Parts: sequence; C-alpha cells; structure tokens
Amino acid sequence: MAEAKLPGEFELIARYFRPLAAASPAALALGDDAALIPAEADTEIVATADALVAGVHFLPEDPPDLIARKMLRVNLSDLAGMGARPLGYLMTLALPGEVTEDWLRRFAEGLAQDQKEFGIGLLGGDTTRTPGRTTLSVTALGQVRAGTALRRKGARIGDAIWVSGTLGDAALALRQLKGEVAVADAAAVRFLIERYRLPQPRLLLGQALVEARLATAGLDISDGLVADLGHLCAQSGVAALVEAQRLPLSAPVHTLLDLDPALIGTILGGGDDYELVFTADPAASEAIDALARGLRLAIARIGCIEAGTGVRVRDAAGCEIAVERGGYRHF
Amino acid sequence: MAEAKLPGEFELIARYFRPLAAASPAALALGDDAALIPAEADTEIVATADALVAGVHFLPEDPPDLIARKMLRVNLSDLAGMGARPLGYLMTLALPGEVTEDWLRRFAEGLAQDQKEFGIGLLGGDTTRTPGRTTLSVTALGQVRAGTALRRKGARIGDAIWVSGTLGDAALALRQLKGEVAVADAAAVRFLIERYRLPQPRLLLGQALVEARLATAGLDISDGLVADLGHLCAQSGVAALVEAQRLPLSAPVHTLLDLDPALIGTILGGGDDYELVFTADPAASEAIDALARGLRLAIARIGCIEAGTGVRVRDAAGCEIAVERGGYRHF
Repeated sequence: MAEAKLPGEFELIARYFRPLAAASPAALALGDDAALIPAEADTEIVATADALVAGVHFLPEDPPDLIARKMLRVNLSDLAGMGARPLGYLMTLALPGEVTEDWLRRFAEGLAQDQKEFGIGLLGGDTTRTPGRTTLSVTALGQVRAGTALRRKGARIGDAIWVSGTLGDAALALRQLKGEVAVADAAAVRFLIERYRLPQPRLLLGQALVEARLATAGLDISDGLVADLGHLCAQSGVAALVEAQRLPLSAPVHTLLDLDPALIGTILGGGDDYELVFTADPAASEAIDALARGLRLAIARIGCIEAGTGVRVRDAAGCEIAVERGGYRHF
Repeated sequence: MAEAKLPGEFELIARYFRPLAAASPAALALGDDAALIPAEADTEIVATADALVAGVHFLPEDPPDLIARKMLRVNLSDLAGMGARPLGYLMTLALPGEVTEDWLRRFAEGLAQDQKEFGIGLLGGDTTRTPGRTTLSVTALGQVRAGTALRRKGARIGDAIWVSGTLGDAALALRQLKGEVAVADAAAVRFLIERYRLPQPRLLLGQALVEARLATAGLDISDGLVADLGHLCAQSGVAALVEAQRLPLSAPVHTLLDLDPALIGTILGGGDDYELVFTADPAASEAIDALARGLRLAIARIGCIEAGTGVRVRDAAGCEIAVERGGYRHF
C-alpha cells in the first residue's frame, strides 16, 4: 500500500502540534514565533537539551509513541536530577520522506499521553524535511527555587550515597534483546524491557530532596552508576566507595546475577537507569527513609564519599570489583 | 589528505563547547545536566527553537562560521520580533562521520564571534553522531517584562504598518546565486550576499518598541513580508494594505527592480529579510522616527491596517499587485 505523503508544515502544526501546545498557555497556541513563560521571583529556569537520531538512539521500526515518551522522559529525568519542577518543552523534528502521517500521529499520541502524566505541554518548536535520518531534539524547561537546585558538586567527605529504584534493568533488557543473556521467565523479560523502553523520571524525589534540602549533591543516572557517580565525584572533588551487595536490584536482575556474577559490570556500567543518585549526611538517613515511604519508591544507601578521586566498588568480601570505565559514550 | 576523525564527546565539549559556555554563568560550565538561569520577577522567558539540516537549510560546503552565525541570528531575530532581550541558547548537533574537527572548530569560532556581538553564551546542549545529515537545533531563550512582548495579535484597524531596514536583499541574493538575475556591480553583489548570509537581528528595535509600548503588534520577517504580515493579520483579525512604492529598498534592489518590475514578487514574497514589521497608531509616527534616528536604522511606513482579511499590495497607480502566496514553506 502506498503511504500518503505528509501534509505541509502548517497542516502538521494544526493537526498534531497545536493540540499538544493546548496544555501550555505559555505556548500562545503556537501563534507566535516564541513561547512566553511567566518567570517567578527567586526562581531559576532549568534548561536541558537532547538530540535523538533514528538508527542511533532508536530504531525506525520502534513504536513511535514509545520513542516520543522515552525522549520526553529522558529529558524530564535531567530536570529530576536537579530537583526541578518541569514547565514544558520545545521540540524540533527533521523528518525524512519515508515518515508517514500515521507515524507522526502515533508519535504525537505518545507525547500527549506523557504530557498528561507529567503535567507539561509543548511550548514551541520547528518541523523540517531532511534527506537524512529522523532527528529529534528536545529542550526541556523546568523551575527550581533559586539556589536550591541539586548539583553534581557539593558532596562532602563522610556523606553517604543513595540511589532510587533498581539498577541494571534497562542495561540487561538491552543485552536480552541482543541475545547476550537469557531471561527464562516471560514476565521478567517484559518487566526488564518495560524498564528499558519507558524510564520513570524521578521528578517527585528530586523535588522533595530539594525542598527538604536533604541532599548535598546528585544527578540522574543515564550513563550508568559508575560513570554518573564519577561525574558527581569529579565535580565535588571527592571519591566514592560503593558496596556491591547494597545495590538495589529487581528480582529478574538478581536471578541473572546469581547465574552469572560477571553481570555486575553491566549493572554498574550500563546506562538508561534514569534513577537518581545523591549524597547526603548520614544523619539524614531517617528523613530519607521517610521520604521513600511517602513516595512509595525504594531508596537504597549504597556507599560513602571519601577523600580522593574516582569510584571504587567493593564486593561482600571487601575485594574491589574492576569496572570497565563505564558509561555509554554518545560519540 | 585523510581527515582526522573527530575526538570523543567529552573532548569535543572541553575543546569547543565549554569555552562557548564560559560567557554564561547559567551554563554551570556544562558541568551539570542542565543550565540554571536566574528568573526575575515580573518577567517572561521567551523561548524559540529552530532546526537546520545540511542540504536543506545550508550546504555542506558553506563556511561553517557563517552557518553558525546565521543559525544564531535567525533565532535571535525571533526574540527581536517579540521585543525580548536574549539570555542565551541551547544547541544540539547531530554530526555525520565526514564532519572534521576543522569544520567544528570554525563552526565554534562563528558562534564565539556572534556570542560576543550579541552578549550571549551557550547554555547547554548535546552532541551525537548521525548516519544521516548534519542537523543543528537551537533553542534561544530571552526575557521580556511581563505582559509587554510584541505579539502577532493586537493590530487595530486604522493602525499604520512599519518595517525596518530594507526588503528583498536576501531573496535577490539567492536568485543572483542561482543565476536567475544578473547584478552588474560587484559591490552590489557582495552587499546582497552579505545580507543573505548574515542577517541582522533587530534586537534593539524590538526592545525599544516594547519599552516605549509603541507597537500594537509585530514580528520578524523570515518567510517574506506578505507571508509574515499575513500571520500578523490572521492573529489580529484584520487586513493589511501595503503600498509598493513605500517599500524600503536598497540601491542594488532598486536597480534590479527598475530593470525588471516583476521582481516585486520576489521582494514581497521572498524570505530571509529578518527585518521587523510592526503596527502602531499613526500618532506614534514621530516617536518612531525619533527611534529610527536613535538606532541609526531606517524604519519605513509602508501601509495601513484595515477591516477584512489578508494582505493586499497596491502599486503607485493604485492597482493591486498579485503576489503569489508568499513565504518560504519549510515543509
């Protein structure tokens, strides 16, 4: 069946983008060249941008609604890592000729679904043709009380290290999809792939940490625990010691790790967790536990901050685990 | 000569992007996942995004510094059209394997040059590989006193219409480059091509109009006078009557138009002017003239706002000029 060509830019805006902007009064119904976002006194605007390319960050045959939702969530996770409340996003799309209106409709449906889930709207953007690959770029904007944002710097020697949720699910889902590991249980496979496809930006946790001023430093884990904790250490001028047996693992990852202890490298060095890692005074332990209960989100204490540089990981016997310089390299 | 491969992402950030971010304290030296931009009470953040694709919006062989500068200026022109003061920009780059470090170095030099000229800095972004075309995306952020931004809506019947600078230079430069018109004088060719390659965002004019609350509506002309004035009319619920003999033209365009009166269509319908068109009470005429003198920028009164819809253009004899539905269609 021959696919219909995409309609023109004005039609695309009217059919797909203006409805997405309806959730943001600041978008001015996309009727002007720019959005107008009310600023509040004593706040800072938090701004982060990401590009996604078909064939690099997603596959052309991936479900368009999931591409859209993951794109949004990855950016919201950056806002979460700084403790920001999301305000909305701008998006540019470069679309090749083979993209169909059905693809775009499903892509927009994914955006609409997550806009509702996270209480945000489209603020503006641009759509253009490309002779190359589908290329998406998102700028997410958020807001935080001035001076309170969670930063990579600020961790102090003697702080403890906490991490939300579970680690390694997405990285092992990817290895399962590639046939590199074999998860026996179908429900476990579904769980892991869901974690890979649809990260949960920890916005409420980030905001709560900032409001209660509990954390000394923190960020979201996109490149793997060792890499991102390494960024925190580098910016804070400290070292981290992580105890492997304290890492929060889902049941499927636990099972895999029992069968093949070498998978600890994937758990520590793989990416796409989109959990938060943060440091705080050990005395904040009870307050953090209370926060975890309130948010119904597991928050595990996994190690401590020391003098020095870099991230070391110890096993239960106290022996150091060699982790290949972790982190997904984007380039 | 074999070109060296690009260094990795962290190296690229250190060599090219962190220096560009040094102009923006809000960029946090690109050490965190997002920028933190101080917000001021009673202001609005103005946000606009654009995507540029090699082979669509620029040619791979175009000078990289000019690609960078035009990209920035086009976005700054959107801020100018709303009367905003620019705060900075986020940028994502998807780069194919054939892009060399020399290309990137010259691209960054162009950004640095215009950052200095317009008093802005890089706030953040993302760099990724692409198997497709070089694709650039910029989100420009600006600031305006709350409730004062120049909008497309607001023009009233009886308002006069003004336009800054001269029209048609860039559109005729493009036709000259394509061999469709023949400009005899080498200096004139250089002038036109400079206007095409390096637009002048009218930031000071936009800000002055907003501060003095002189204009009722306005925007920058990127898609051609008729198209953009048409947007203003549509959003304001009015019509526009433009008198062709009042259009501000550079000497080279005047000469071309004298030789071929049909070029009026290119002047009215071509794009890339990046001048401002705005409406104001005719009583504001003297104040606008004073503003023009203060800014050393020509501002011409070209017509008036009427009841109805759409844009009509009349020649000196009072006859209507048919203008093909103007405006560069991005899609």
